Amino acid sequence: MLRIAVLGCGRIGQMHAANVARHPRSKLVAVYDVHRPSAEKVAEAQGVLAAASAEEIFASDDVDAVLIATATPTHADYIEKAVAAGKAVLCEKPIDLDLARVNACAAKISETKIPIQIGFNRRYDPGHSAARTAMLAGDIGDLHQVIITSRDPSLPPRAYLEAAGGLFRDMTIHDFDLARFMLGEEPVEVFAIANALIDPALGAELNEVDSAMFILRTASGKQCHINNSRTAVYGYDQRVELVGNKGMLVSDNRKPHELRRFTSASVEASEPYQFFFLERYHDAFMAEIDGFVDCVEKGAVPLASFEDGRRALILAEAAYVSLREGRLVKVSELER
Amino acid sequence: MLRIAVLGCGRIGQMHAANVARHPRSKLVAVYDVHRPSAEKVAEAQGVLAAASAEEIFASDDVDAVLIATATPTHADYIEKAVAAGKAVLCEKPIDLDLARVNACAAKISETKIPIQIGFNRRYDPGHSAARTAMLAGDIGDLHQVIITSRDPSLPPRAYLEAAGGLFRDMTIHDFDLARFMLGEEPVEVFAIANALIDPALGAELNEVDSAMFILRTASGKQCHINNSRTAVYGYDQRVELVGNKGMLVSDNRKPHELRRFTSASVEASEPYQFFFLERYHDAFMAEIDGFVDCVEKGAVPLASFEDGRRALILAEAAYVSLREGRLVKVSELER
Amino acid sequence: MLRIAVLGCGRIGQMHAANVARHPRSKLVAVYDVHRPSAEKVAEAQGVLAAASAEEIFASDDVDAVLIATATPTHADYIEKAVAAGKAVLCEKPIDLDLARVNACAAKISETKIPIQIGFNRRYDPGHSAARTAMLAGDIGDLHQVIITSRDPSLPPRAYLEAAGGLFRDMTIHDFDLARFMLGEEPVEVFAIANALIDPALGAELNEVDSAMFILRTASGKQCHINNSRTAVYGYDQRVELVGNKGMLVSDNRKPHELRRFTSASVEASEPYQFFFLERYHDAFMAEIDGFVDCVEKGAVPLASFEDGRRALILAEAAYVSLREGRLVKVSELER
Amino acid sequence: MLRIAVLGCGRIGQMHAANVARHPRSKLVAVYDVHRPSAEKVAEAQGVLAAASAEEIFASDDVDAVLIATATPTHADYIEKAVAAGKAVLCEKPIDLDLARVNACAAKISETKIPIQIGFNRRYDPGHSAARTAMLAGDIGDLHQVIITSRDPSLPPRAYLEAAGGLFRDMTIHDFDLARFMLGEEPVEVFAIANALIDPALGAELNEVDSAMFILRTASGKQCHINNSRTAVYGYDQRVELVGNKGMLVSDNRKPHELRRFTSASVEASEPYQFFFLERYHDAFMAEIDGFVDCVEKGAVPLASFEDGRRALILAEAAYVSLREGRLVKVSELER
Repeated sequence: MLRIAVLGCGRIGQMHAANVARHPRSKLVAVYDVHRPSAEKVAEAQGVLAAASAEEIFASDDVDAVLIATATPTHADYIEKAVAAGKAVLCEKPIDLDLARVNACAAKISETKIPIQIGFNRRYDPGHSAARTAMLAGDIGDLHQVIITSRDPSLPPRAYLEAAGGLFRDMTIHDFDLARFMLGEEPVEVFAIANALIDPALGAELNEVDSAMFILRTASGKQCHINNSRTAVYGYDQRVELVGNKGMLVSDNRKPHELRRFTSASVEASEPYQFFFLERYHDAFMAEIDGFVDCVEKGAVPLASFEDGRRALILAEAAYVSLREGRLVKVSELER
Repeated sequence: MLRIAVLGCGRIGQMHAANVARHPRSKLVAVYDVHRPSAEKVAEAQGVLAAASAEEIFASDDVDAVLIATATPTHADYIEKAVAAGKAVLCEKPIDLDLARVNACAAKISETKIPIQIGFNRRYDPGHSAARTAMLAGDIGDLHQVIITSRDPSLPPRAYLEAAGGLFRDMTIHDFDLARFMLGEEPVEVFAIANALIDPALGAELNEVDSAMFILRTASGKQCHINNSRTAVYGYDQRVELVGNKGMLVSDNRKPHELRRFTSASVEASEPYQFFFLERYHDAFMAEIDGFVDCVEKGAVPLASFEDGRRALILAEAAYVSLREGRLVKVSELER
Repeated sequence: MLRIAVLGCGRIGQMHAANVARHPRSKLVAVYDVHRPSAEKVAEAQGVLAAASAEEIFASDDVDAVLIATATPTHADYIEKAVAAGKAVLCEKPIDLDLARVNACAAKISETKIPIQIGFNRRYDPGHSAARTAMLAGDIGDLHQVIITSRDPSLPPRAYLEAAGGLFRDMTIHDFDLARFMLGEEPVEVFAIANALIDPALGAELNEVDSAMFILRTASGKQCHINNSRTAVYGYDQRVELVGNKGMLVSDNRKPHELRRFTSASVEASEPYQFFFLERYHDAFMAEIDGFVDCVEKGAVPLASFEDGRRALILAEAAYVSLREGRLVKVSELER
Repeated sequence: MLRIAVLGCGRIGQMHAANVARHPRSKLVAVYDVHRPSAEKVAEAQGVLAAASAEEIFASDDVDAVLIATATPTHADYIEKAVAAGKAVLCEKPIDLDLARVNACAAKISETKIPIQIGFNRRYDPGHSAARTAMLAGDIGDLHQVIITSRDPSLPPRAYLEAAGGLFRDMTIHDFDLARFMLGEEPVEVFAIANALIDPALGAELNEVDSAMFILRTASGKQCHINNSRTAVYGYDQRVELVGNKGMLVSDNRKPHELRRFTSASVEASEPYQFFFLERYHDAFMAEIDGFVDCVEKGAVPLASFEDGRRALILAEAAYVSLREGRLVKVSELER
């Protein structure tokens, strides 16, 4: 049983704490949040300790690993501290909104042998993962195109958007990572357009967008399209399409159950898709912990590494350059 | 080009006339209806002759074959006359509502070499037909169960019901035939229940039913279920399921097109299924003519023969005995 | 937290023990099995006590409720003992293979206020349950027909079959219960056919069948068809179709994930359905515990009561009479 | 009955000739092909005249309209001649591969009142058309994104590719038109990438590509993605997705029939999609003639006009500029 402490008790921290507690191979031993009552609430629900500080957790002999689900600006610090304390790390994305900070962190931990896994949950989704496995097994021949559809159910609150670092770094970063995961080689070029279509005021007031389209290309010419929207009233829309010269694989949306209705108005109608990431990626989040335990206990290589987190951010930065300059941007322009 | 005359210019006769006219291997040469204006309307639309009598058609040298789509009580007579006149026959189902009359007709034409095909259009449906072909090719191993769903879009008018000869002989007869077509061996036992659920007055006033369920079994133990309803507000519901020890084949319903809607109320919703047999089985009716031309021109054996028409009626009769007596009825009780 | 002890540590007992342990509102406190090592294995995995006897559990003050998952012949005894000890009961189906024993048990516990829930897990399935809710809300108007498809993935071992009490009491009993759950009124007539199609030797050697079809009817004429097979190589096939005068509801099968494949051989192909009840009804089994906790803690009426268990057995008995006598059997013939 | 002559008896000309002959409101009166035997073959099959020259057709009093399905370089000439002769025109796309020639033709026919319809068959597809109608009716609120998937079943022969004018002008032109049809306002910006992934030799030898991705944007910010491939082994892949703030509409692929297979390897598998445009867009091609007859006989405005043909070509030209320069191209750069 891997003894895990969860840092951060917001929405996703609460989910992780419950998952760690329920997972057959991990044990929740402590939680921490900068807002003490939040930590205490989760601690009580799970019957564990609410640590007084993150340091208390890093110093504890009863903690094998930390799951970092705090505010983004603290991620890199906590990763460095965890590594220094010899604790394995499972850190939520993004590592940081600032590529320089990520690079600095990378430099600092470059020598460590401690497992560091980034919370790109979609890599662990049974459907997406089965699509990739089939593709790698040659089921569709050579991969030519990847189409990623990624639409959130509804616009988050203003306060969230103000701190999120922009659509590309906050939301698309998952899709950039999924693109890399599926393409099997690095995208070397990025193009982006984006608009505030759902809430035009976003553009004027926050310089933010809510709808975007991207094209990525690898050195060998593999093509990838990503489309994003902050609103999908029919449920969280998460699809991946892999096209090769011998076939196509589609990892499609998941419904809460398989009830279909047939009336004089329509046939084969199902209830809206699972609402958001907590529901849609529930299995993925559990599998993520499974993978993390394998990294720590069996020395497995993380399926989503620190470098994966860094490279997804580089793609986001390249996309912002493309957005500003209206051109296809070489990813190498952004790399150290 | 097979020169075909269509007898009967009601709803289905009009459709057949148009199909024969449009079919690349047949030519419509004349139409007839006991109600002269009906014949004239179709004749004008198709640019052919409205015969003054059925006899005129049987006597004509310009007619190779007749398609009988007149009222049911005339079917057996016209079959006999066509055979006497040396015209090939494609006759709508049922041959007659009275098994004795069908048997008499069978005796009378028993020596003929003239092709006689019965209008069991579903045998020619691309989906149903592909299911049977796959089953015969061994794709599901040994066939164990057949489930036939057959629901009309809405209750026909009283006048139709009064003349139709009862649900089993009018509507289920198609399903009895499909059961025989799929089972690959004769059903030897039949069980039936039926109720007037859609319009309870039907029972009291016409001694008629609108909802029914059947179980059939062959000598080797293959099982078949049929369910019928005179109302399916979501469109004509026509499904066949074949279950074997190595898999299942389902010939499912067909939509007018593949538009699917996704809203906050439901996802993957399509428009109701194609309304009724004219739309749903359009391809089947064309293939039926194709098969008929093959019978006449190439000597092919009809996919739906006179004997198929007779045996379907025997199953209907057996089902009525079951309904009255509440027991599993041996088909042999009904056979000559 | 409801403190539950699990009696019986076979396949389904193990599942229940894990579910009780993981459920947020229940706590696993002890397990028992007549085969001590089986109990010890589960006890160790879950970190609880392996009781030396069932009596030890009934006598314990630390046990609020028992989940009976032992061999069928012990069910009625354990129910009676649990009631005597004041423990709430969640008992696997069937209550007993012998209707007289069930009736005796019913008489013995008739005065108790202790919650007794029967393990008809399908009533708790999200899809089936949503179908029923929509039907009760009037979404399809008046219910006319129910079609239940229920096929196990593969034939169980001979040893299992010898003790199971026959297909109708062991397997179809779930479908008889589901039929009652959906029909909303008691079936008053039953008809059945059955054959040994998958393994013909079953008939000769065990007088057992593996493929069956049923028709049930309520007093108001609502019709229900059930079809069963002990083999479905494409995965556990569990479907319910509700047909009314204003529409149809279908609770369809569930796939492990939504990957679809498109090749030159076929399109939209998914992996086989979830293998068997442990996977397919995982959510249902968890919801079953949820419902049980509500019964004990909130005084809710069990969604699946002792009487539901008894009535499903009566339908199985009526079906056996129909099978032997080849006739529609009135359920009243079987009732006390 | 509109009397139509078909110019060009290649693959698509043959199809049009058969459709015109079969259509209830049109009559095929003559065919012409520069390769006389081709014309004679079609003429014989349809029982019409093979004209000795196009001029003979333009001069004939028995011809109300011409359907131009000849080689692309002749389109503009024949349009001009037909207009001069007072014949209505239904012309296959593209009008010409050279925008200057199209503009010259536009200038020449600018004063005519004669109906000119371009063969953008997809506008007439029942599914695509129903999607647009629903969108215009407000079913998905404000339109934000359009995603068009368009993949041909297999790479055409070298000879075809050499004359086709390049992927964007030959194949994508249909998608550019569909984008305009769905967006409801003009795309003002275009971005494109393209590669020879299916047959890398295409790039070296023909300077041609076989896989492409596009992003288009309108003045109000509506976004459109198109993806193209010259190979889809699972059948002609033709999908349109419309995303709005209140829902999504998807016009999906069409199967030859609704047979689904369930085996131990996979479930819900259907046969590959309809092979190519002749099959997939059969209904659309018939509806196209319907629309054309309405234009001529009822003065309806063509759903796909000459200007639509011109604007689709402008988008193709803009895409080629984007491809060469790796930047978002303003469509206004290409306009006169």
